[in-house]
Amino acid sequence: MPDTSAGSLTFLLGGARSGKSAHAEKLATAHPAPWTYIATAQSWDDEMAERIALHRARRTEGWSTVDAPFDLAEAVRAVPDERPLLVDCLTLWLSNHMLAGHDVDALSAELAHVLSAPRGPWFVVSNEVGLGIVPDNALGRRFRDAQGRLNQSVAAVADRVLFMVAGLPMQVK
Amino acid sequence: MPDTSAGSLTFLLGGARSGKSAHAEKLATAHPAPWTYIATAQSWDDEMAERIALHRARRTEGWSTVDAPFDLAEAVRAVPDERPLLVDCLTLWLSNHMLAGHDVDALSAELAHVLSAPRGPWFVVSNEVGLGIVPDNALGRRFRDAQGRLNQSVAAVADRVLFMVAGLPMQVK
Amino acid sequence: MPDTSAGSLTFLLGGARSGKSAHAEKLATAHPAPWTYIATAQSWDDEMAERIALHRARRTEGWSTVDAPFDLAEAVRAVPDERPLLVDCLTLWLSNHMLAGHDVDALSAELAHVLSAPRGPWFVVSNEVGLGIVPDNALGRRFRDAQGRLNQSVAAVADRVLFMVAGLPMQVK
Repeated sequence: MPDTSAGSLTFLLGGARSGKSAHAEKLATAHPAPWTYIATAQSWDDEMAERIALHRARRTEGWSTVDAPFDLAEAVRAVPDERPLLVDCLTLWLSNHMLAGHDVDALSAELAHVLSAPRGPWFVVSNEVGLGIVPDNALGRRFRDAQGRLNQSVAAVADRVLFMVAGLPMQVK
Repeated sequence: MPDTSAGSLTFLLGGARSGKSAHAEKLATAHPAPWTYIATAQSWDDEMAERIALHRARRTEGWSTVDAPFDLAEAVRAVPDERPLLVDCLTLWLSNHMLAGHDVDALSAELAHVLSAPRGPWFVVSNEVGLGIVPDNALGRRFRDAQGRLNQSVAAVADRVLFMVAGLPMQVK
Repeated sequence: MPDTSAGSLTFLLGGARSGKSAHAEKLATAHPAPWTYIATAQSWDDEMAERIALHRARRTEGWSTVDAPFDLAEAVRAVPDERPLLVDCLTLWLSNHMLAGHDVDALSAELAHVLSAPRGPWFVVSNEVGLGIVPDNALGRRFRDAQGRLNQSVAAVADRVLFMVAGLPMQVK
C-alpha cells in the first residue's frame, strides 16, 4: 500500500474499468471525513448518466460532491486546503474542453500549476489512452496527444503515481 | 520469477501479442505433466483458425486440450483438482457470450466464483483492452467495460497477477 | 534510475505521448557526446512533419541525425560502435515497411538480430499498441500483431526494458 499521508498528491492512472475511481475513494476515505469529490462528468446521454449514477451510489455519507465539467482549477481552489479531495477525472474534463473547442494545452498548463500547490491529501484520476493503435480520426489523435501531455505534466508534480491494472495499483512513482 | 506453487491461481493479463499464452504455458509446464489446456477460441474465420493452429502447434506432448467457447465454468470443474490447468483466454470467452447476447455480468460473476475455489496450480489468461481511446461504437464500449469488470473480479481472487509487457511479466500482485 | 552503462541495450516501450523519446534522450545524453539519433519518421503529411520538427527542436548540439525510414539495420551498422545511439522509433519503421507491402516478419527478425549485437550504449524506442480493443480493420490487426511480435523479439535481447507511463519509467527487465 503506497503512502498517502497528508499534504500529498496521488495521481491514479489506468484504463477504462481498471478500478481507478474505487481505489481513489478507498485511499481518500482512509483520511478523516468530510471528503470532497469533484466530478467532471457531464451526462449528455443515457450511457453517461448511468455511469455517473453508479459512481454516486458508491459514495456514502461524509462526501460532498462538486460538479466541475469545465472550471476545475477554480473548483479545486474553493475546497478547504486540509480537506481530503478526489478529482474524478481529468479525462472527462479534457474531453469537455476539447469538444467545446477550447485551448486545451493552455488549460492543461494552468491545471498542472494548480495541482503543484501544496494542500491536504488529494487524489486525481485520469485515463491512459495511448496504448492502442493510432486512432483513425484526427480528433481521436489530437485527444490522445493532449491527454498524454496532460498526464505527463500531472505525473511530474505528483508525489505518487499509481498505474491501475485490474483494480490493483502498481506504483510508478 | 513469481512463485507459482501448487494450489494457486496465477492471472496473466496483457495486450495483444504480449506473450501471455507462451508465458502461461511456460509456468504451467514447470509443474509435472499431464497438463490440461482449456481453449475458448472459436474458429469463425480463417484469421482465427490460423491463430488457433499456431497456439496448438506450440503445445507438445503431455497436454490435453478441451474446447470451451461457452461452458468454461463446467469445463474447469471437470478437470481433476490436482492437475495443472491453463485457461486461454477469458477475452474470447467473454466475446463469444456477448456476441451471442448472453448476460455477461451474471456469467462473469459465476466464473469469478469458480476461479476462487482452491485447486492445483492454474493459470488464467485475459486481455487488458481499456488503454486506448474510447471505442467509437457502443458494442466496443460495452465489451471493454465488461472485460474490465471481469478482470477486476478475477484479479481480486487470484493469488498472483502478472501484467505482460513484450513477453516479460510485471508482478502486480 | 535504471543502470544504462556502456555496452548495453535499453528498450523503451510505451504508449503515445508517454515520454518515451524524451526519456531516451535523457538517458543517452548521460553518456559523453557525440550522440547519434536514427529517425525512422517520414513526413508524409503536415501532422507528421510537425511532430518531426518538434522532436528535432528538442535535440541540441552534440547530436547527429540519420534518417532511416526503411534501412534501419544498415543505419545502425554504420554508426561507430562506441557512440551512444538512439533509435526512434521501431513503430514508424514497422509501419513504413508494412504500408510498402514488405515482409515485416523477415525484416523484424533481421532487426532483432542486429539489435542483439554488442556495442556501446544504445536506446531503442517502440510503441506498445495492443492494449485497446480489437481494431475493426484487418490492417490494424496485422499491424498490432507484427508490432507485438517485434517488441517481444527486441525485449528478449535487450539488457533493460522500460515501460513508460506518463513520462515515468517502470523497469520491466
